[in-house]
Amino acid sequence: MSLVIVGSLAFDTIQTPRERREKVVGGSCTYCALAASFFTSPKIVGVVGEDFPREIIQFFQSKKIDTRGLEARPGKTFFWEGHYGYDPEQRETIKTEINVFRDFRPKLPASYRRAEIVFLANIDPDLQDEILSQMESPALVAMDTINLWIATKPEGIWRVLKKVNIFFANEEEIKMLSQETNLIKAARRVLASGPRLAVIKKGEHGALVLGRDFVFGVLGHPCEDVVDPTGAGDSFAGGFLGYLDKAGKISRPQIRRAAVFGSVMASFAIEDFSIERFKALRSEEIEKRFREFRRLVTF
Amino acid sequence: MSLVIVGSLAFDTIQTPRERREKVVGGSCTYCALAASFFTSPKIVGVVGEDFPREIIQFFQSKKIDTRGLEARPGKTFFWEGHYGYDPEQRETIKTEINVFRDFRPKLPASYRRAEIVFLANIDPDLQDEILSQMESPALVAMDTINLWIATKPEGIWRVLKKVNIFFANEEEIKMLSQETNLIKAARRVLASGPRLAVIKKGEHGALVLGRDFVFGVLGHPCEDVVDPTGAGDSFAGGFLGYLDKAGKISRPQIRRAAVFGSVMASFAIEDFSIERFKALRSEEIEKRFREFRRLVTF
Repeated sequence: MSLVIVGSLAFDTIQTPRERREKVVGGSCTYCALAASFFTSPKIVGVVGEDFPREIIQFFQSKKIDTRGLEARPGKTFFWEGHYGYDPEQRETIKTEINVFRDFRPKLPASYRRAEIVFLANIDPDLQDEILSQMESPALVAMDTINLWIATKPEGIWRVLKKVNIFFANEEEIKMLSQETNLIKAARRVLASGPRLAVIKKGEHGALVLGRDFVFGVLGHPCEDVVDPTGAGDSFAGGFLGYLDKAGKISRPQIRRAAVFGSVMASFAIEDFSIERFKALRSEEIEKRFREFRRLVTF
Repeated sequence: MSLVIVGSLAFDTIQTPRERREKVVGGSCTYCALAASFFTSPKIVGVVGEDFPREIIQFFQSKKIDTRGLEARPGKTFFWEGHYGYDPEQRETIKTEINVFRDFRPKLPASYRRAEIVFLANIDPDLQDEILSQMESPALVAMDTINLWIATKPEGIWRVLKKVNIFFANEEEIKMLSQETNLIKAARRVLASGPRLAVIKKGEHGALVLGRDFVFGVLGHPCEDVVDPTGAGDSFAGGFLGYLDKAGKISRPQIRRAAVFGSVMASFAIEDFSIERFKALRSEEIEKRFREFRRLVTF
């Protein structure tokens, strides 16, 4: 099959309780595409400024990521600064500079429009909708979002959801969007609006995949040293959808394994700053950790 | 084998966002023993006042719970009032009346002293220590505790831990005791003091069982309607230790299944107020839910 990933490419300034990193490479599309690249050859859609390192784009290409949908524009790349507490779930956004993302209205390359799987990572829901309308007839549409859009454009999210098969969100987001305090009820509200599956990412606690008559849970990988939680959720989506694209069919056994590969890729992403861990990652490590996830829950 | 459970029998006043129940039967020993009674015939140690319902003790006996270690004393039964938020993890203690528990210095019946498994549920660590010294040579000692004792008698807890094989705690408690913010590090600190296993209860997220070179995770049962979270942790310990007692050996495969049965019993406990769900529970339901837990994580 083939997988289109739409999202942000960014510079991030990250502060954890122990360390600070200035202007490292980040963005939802970046993490998602790199995670997916261990399974398939994703096609990315996004925009970068003149300051974005050429070597990173070359690195994407070396990972067989299709960058024909990547625009380079005059101006500065999207910037985000975030601080994490001792609990990696405690994240505070210090600064967001939209920069070249402001007028981003991508036209998908012809070679992208027939992709079977499309992932709309966290961007303005109106933009997600517009991009989706350019796809011919994808077999699977997945989306993610963040609190910012839930707070400012909830009706936009609900509109896109009608056209979406898999909704990815973290606990806080799905509760906020659905206005339910119980996760299962929150998922039901989302499923009632269209999606067949809600994938709830729970950080160190793993993830739940909920369908109308389906539930699957995956644990988080026990991690003693979370170096940088940035991109964990996007890496989860990348592993999940990259595996499905590679598998070539979307049955329940594949969905279960996809969720485990999502958790596996998220567990690697947080072991180093920025995309460093993905630069060093070997396929054998992914297979090994997949087996560890099985051992972790087998009884 | 045989299992001794030491803990509180209580009246609880429970307020959830939707309902309030006055002076219903509760207590760590109560929940733990009832959960264990579906697997074995636990022997309980505790104290009640004159106001404790005779029918409840008869109900214990009908469940083959050995009540010879249960003292009835002049005065009122231990009382606790707690309020829960929309998130069942948000628990606020409104009132605690120690009552007959104040001078509780149990002497274990002779028939109890040779039990292979002893569970010291949440009570004063000095009392846990004293009771433990009355046991002849238990094969397995497990303990639980709460924030109150971690805040007021941490050195007492560390002293008991030296003699304990399995430490049960929730996330907040083990972090507070170990002064670590990461769960795996927190568990390592506890394991370094003596126990072979730390069982970290994570509410709706399930539980982690950590040993020096062992890790197992179990999910929480997806529950749409948490009626009363009281006693979930004690029911977990009851299912865990009740199953081990029935299994008759303490190997790793048994530990894994014990943790699942713990999560199963906790999932039932929260489906109704007080011990109501255990009154109605049938063994077939336990087996069915155990299979559901397997389906939930199989990939």
